Amino acid sequence: MSPRAIILDCDPGQDDAVAILLALASPEELELIAITTVAGNVPLVRTSANARRVVDFAGGDVPVYAGAAKPLLRPLATAEHVHGATGLDGSELPPPRRPLAPGHASRAIVDLVRARPPKSVTLVATGPLTNVALALALAPDLGERLEAIVLMGGAIGLGNVTPAAEFNMFVDPHAAAMVFTAGVPIVMFPLDVTWQVRVTAERLARIAAIGTPLARAVAGMLAFYRGRGTREDAPRGALHDPCTIAWLVEPRLFSGRPCAVEVETASPTALGRTLVDWFGVTDRPPNATVMREADADGFFALLEKRLARLGGG
Amino acid sequence: MSPRAIILDCDPGQDDAVAILLALASPEELELIAITTVAGNVPLVRTSANARRVVDFAGGDVPVYAGAAKPLLRPLATAEHVHGATGLDGSELPPPRRPLAPGHASRAIVDLVRARPPKSVTLVATGPLTNVALALALAPDLGERLEAIVLMGGAIGLGNVTPAAEFNMFVDPHAAAMVFTAGVPIVMFPLDVTWQVRVTAERLARIAAIGTPLARAVAGMLAFYRGRGTREDAPRGALHDPCTIAWLVEPRLFSGRPCAVEVETASPTALGRTLVDWFGVTDRPPNATVMREADADGFFALLEKRLARLGGG
Amino acid sequence: MSPRAIILDCDPGQDDAVAILLALASPEELELIAITTVAGNVPLVRTSANARRVVDFAGGDVPVYAGAAKPLLRPLATAEHVHGATGLDGSELPPPRRPLAPGHASRAIVDLVRARPPKSVTLVATGPLTNVALALALAPDLGERLEAIVLMGGAIGLGNVTPAAEFNMFVDPHAAAMVFTAGVPIVMFPLDVTWQVRVTAERLARIAAIGTPLARAVAGMLAFYRGRGTREDAPRGALHDPCTIAWLVEPRLFSGRPCAVEVETASPTALGRTLVDWFGVTDRPPNATVMREADADGFFALLEKRLARLGGG
Amino acid sequence: MSPRAIILDCDPGQDDAVAILLALASPEELELIAITTVAGNVPLVRTSANARRVVDFAGGDVPVYAGAAKPLLRPLATAEHVHGATGLDGSELPPPRRPLAPGHASRAIVDLVRARPPKSVTLVATGPLTNVALALALAPDLGERLEAIVLMGGAIGLGNVTPAAEFNMFVDPHAAAMVFTAGVPIVMFPLDVTWQVRVTAERLARIAAIGTPLARAVAGMLAFYRGRGTREDAPRGALHDPCTIAWLVEPRLFSGRPCAVEVETASPTALGRTLVDWFGVTDRPPNATVMREADADGFFALLEKRLARLGGG
Repeated sequence: MSPRAIILDCDPGQDDAVAILLALASPEELELIAITTVAGNVPLVRTSANARRVVDFAGGDVPVYAGAAKPLLRPLATAEHVHGATGLDGSELPPPRRPLAPGHASRAIVDLVRARPPKSVTLVATGPLTNVALALALAPDLGERLEAIVLMGGAIGLGNVTPAAEFNMFVDPHAAAMVFTAGVPIVMFPLDVTWQVRVTAERLARIAAIGTPLARAVAGMLAFYRGRGTREDAPRGALHDPCTIAWLVEPRLFSGRPCAVEVETASPTALGRTLVDWFGVTDRPPNATVMREADADGFFALLEKRLARLGGG
Repeated sequence: MSPRAIILDCDPGQDDAVAILLALASPEELELIAITTVAGNVPLVRTSANARRVVDFAGGDVPVYAGAAKPLLRPLATAEHVHGATGLDGSELPPPRRPLAPGHASRAIVDLVRARPPKSVTLVATGPLTNVALALALAPDLGERLEAIVLMGGAIGLGNVTPAAEFNMFVDPHAAAMVFTAGVPIVMFPLDVTWQVRVTAERLARIAAIGTPLARAVAGMLAFYRGRGTREDAPRGALHDPCTIAWLVEPRLFSGRPCAVEVETASPTALGRTLVDWFGVTDRPPNATVMREADADGFFALLEKRLARLGGG
Repeated sequence: MSPRAIILDCDPGQDDAVAILLALASPEELELIAITTVAGNVPLVRTSANARRVVDFAGGDVPVYAGAAKPLLRPLATAEHVHGATGLDGSELPPPRRPLAPGHASRAIVDLVRARPPKSVTLVATGPLTNVALALALAPDLGERLEAIVLMGGAIGLGNVTPAAEFNMFVDPHAAAMVFTAGVPIVMFPLDVTWQVRVTAERLARIAAIGTPLARAVAGMLAFYRGRGTREDAPRGALHDPCTIAWLVEPRLFSGRPCAVEVETASPTALGRTLVDWFGVTDRPPNATVMREADADGFFALLEKRLARLGGG
Repeated sequence: MSPRAIILDCDPGQDDAVAILLALASPEELELIAITTVAGNVPLVRTSANARRVVDFAGGDVPVYAGAAKPLLRPLATAEHVHGATGLDGSELPPPRRPLAPGHASRAIVDLVRARPPKSVTLVATGPLTNVALALALAPDLGERLEAIVLMGGAIGLGNVTPAAEFNMFVDPHAAAMVFTAGVPIVMFPLDVTWQVRVTAERLARIAAIGTPLARAVAGMLAFYRGRGTREDAPRGALHDPCTIAWLVEPRLFSGRPCAVEVETASPTALGRTLVDWFGVTDRPPNATVMREADADGFFALLEKRLARLGGG
């Protein structure tokens, strides 16, 4: 069976970086045909550099397209308090060597998907959904052409940036609402599941012990990342974004069920809340498979094994 | 130490009925000075009759005042699919004997609280907060005069009537918003804690085994109540409302912490959501103690012991 | 034919003061049974004093009840930039002699209306609708008991406090929404009509020329009021509030038509907008007679004639 | 002086058709480099055919690109009750001969503007702003590259599809909000000005009297259009869309002033309202020149003269 073609739309961010690396290290399962970047954890100029820094360091060969520098309607909010000023604080990756691929990320997504057979490309999104929403608006046929959109974002319970909202949904709620109503099969990894997948001291030590330059870089950035967060007792060090890739590689690591999901765009208080109808109290049909349980040990075993394949440096 | 004076504002409803009974059966800890009724689980004419039916059957002597027949701004939504057409389906309580006390519930709340020393009355609310909001609007001094408002309502995680909202908050979100900004100390029992306190077959059998007419009536209504609910896997049979009274009687049965809570009034999608800042991601000061853990066995042990005191019939 | 009984709920304010005086000076047409005050143009303590100062100075004998010190859900916004710090700047009325009547304005409205035959009392409202909404919530029978609610507020076109909203509706949009859905016949005087009724230099001179202490006081406050306003070309010196009383005295001064009116409560941007379906583009039934044309000369002729009756001082 | 290059984004619609014709007939002032179509008055397949039917019939040579088939977030609302099933009811234009130009309208806008010198292209928009918003999102440099966006839409006073909103803004309020915050100079023709420019029996007769096949076709479609409308006394037969082109050709026909304009996206009731700060009551800086007065006779004189130039058929 041939690997599944994916485009990874992201805003690196340490956890996005791990998602890129896990994808690059899994060629049996995944063909990473492009990376597209969006403003989110840090501004676009940073996320666009960071994606290339990670690909370069891992010795990968994937084009990187830059996309939206700000959300559709809202001013950009970033998260340097979590990721550091560069977005990859804690590592010492060199500046990017490869240039950006030409053209806007959303146009690239449209053109790359249309160039492949129907239902053969999966779009993975680990940042705000601005680029994805623009691509779907430009090319409604993507609704039928994409195999799926696998995304990290939202919350069934508590948010992390407000009591209502997870960061990616909060940053561009209108884009998120467009994506959730576009008719593409969606697999959603909300905070409820990604908060189960946390870097601990022991897990960090095992990654560092791999000993390659790349593993040391990853350990460095995760050590930084694990130390950041808003409050004492809030969940920290969760590897949100790589859950998407890990599920594509090893689906049995996660479980969930189909639900109707809406995204709040109207209220200042609840902005970006994902209203997940887990118990079926509405009569809305499911539009996403929402994950809720993770095998965290299985996840880290996979990550460790795959990272060891990439020398880096 | 003298018992704590309480006014119970409610919309019976089987679980409100149990709250009334638990209060009546706990004279060492609580002096129930009045019951006030509001439209909610069933229309006002039903809740006003039901409160009196319960008091009469238990041999209690408490005035019952009727209040708001509909929410402040929204049309009334009721929950006969949960409680049955009468609101007390499953029991066979006779019609009320005692008449309603004269005057609107909100005026009664104001006058009763003002007639007592400052900080000596606690308002317990187990239905939509319409009456409570009106009382606070008519008498802002209640903000300083009340010892506390102890209420069942809201959700940290999933709602029960929409993915966003718990029933009481959904029915009158504007009233709820008024109460949460009135400056009264609030103790909040959201679904997250009340869903832990469920009637099981065994617990039902133990209540029935008390053998009094009243215990048989309670067992009947809880058997009915336990069988109702929206979906197969949704939480059922939760004794939401009596959690408030149980905490007043035996505070160690519940734990939680102070949080900033806002109520969504603007968005149709998220209407009535309680945005609970459990992790302190906002800089809003706490305005409520939000309960999150319950000792369900302890709750039912208390309930069983106290119900046995009331003969009924 | 006996005079029409009215209760005037107001937030004086120079133009409210003129409304009070016009009512006091029109005993053939109006019996002013009470004045109730609300926070609005200036805080409640000011409006409650001002209403009494005006009644005292005019030698009137009307009870004044104080009501809500703040809107139902929103923080209070006031308009000292228009009315001056006292609300009656420009006059030198002495402090009030008469005390406030006991009890909250909303309770007084309920009790006074219930004490009269059905359909015999008209409620005139020239401030934010907080008191009126609370009265209707406490006593839904007022919906059938009141002859009408005649109110100044709202806009068909531009607002005056935001591009969307007129001041009274902006200050308490939730109360306004409650009033417009209560089922009482409403006569509405929006900015579109009250902006036609402006104090000019000539009109001011004619009032001053009446020569009584009261006329001099009115001229003084209107001279101040006419000089205030936000921008150079915005409408100034409009006698918004007395339009309600003038219409009750002389209905032919104004014309309009029945329309469906909704009040915006959800959006921060459009908060307090009155959505007046002047052209019948919705299928909502009319709930208010909305005035749109005024005979300004006729208004001032009436005002001049009636003010001359009151000696004052 | 060379003619001004324009791209006309439209949803024909009889009045859009007149806008196209007026542009084609004004080569001294305007170079129409492309027409782009959007769903609005009728669905996209209709507007895309209609634009080509008009260009073909007028003997024009302009590429037509199809764009968005639906608004960004909302379901599509159309206005066949005004424009008839085809959108050009009342005329008998043959089916289009020319094919659509390849590629999405928004991509075409981006590429055409970037191919010209900065500040040399004006974007005229007479339908919902979906295509324009997507173009600006894909290419934020358009904010600096465009000379201006000249658009028909919005209202200072009453709307035409709801009491709050004009049709174009109502159909895609999110797109409109994106356009009004994009930093491009905007010239806005709201209903307040376009309702002044109405087809009367006499004006219609003068157009018919031109006698060419094209003039007869225009007279036919305007006769149909003039007869449609929601209510007896609502403004009818207003030539909304050609106001934009007429202003570009003869600016002295219209007057207005710079204002801050916001578009309501949150409230169901006020959706699509344009909040125009005509009196400067907010402290927001102007982002649009808002027209409010039209010389209707001058407009029709220009239209008549220019239509006579086009033979058609």
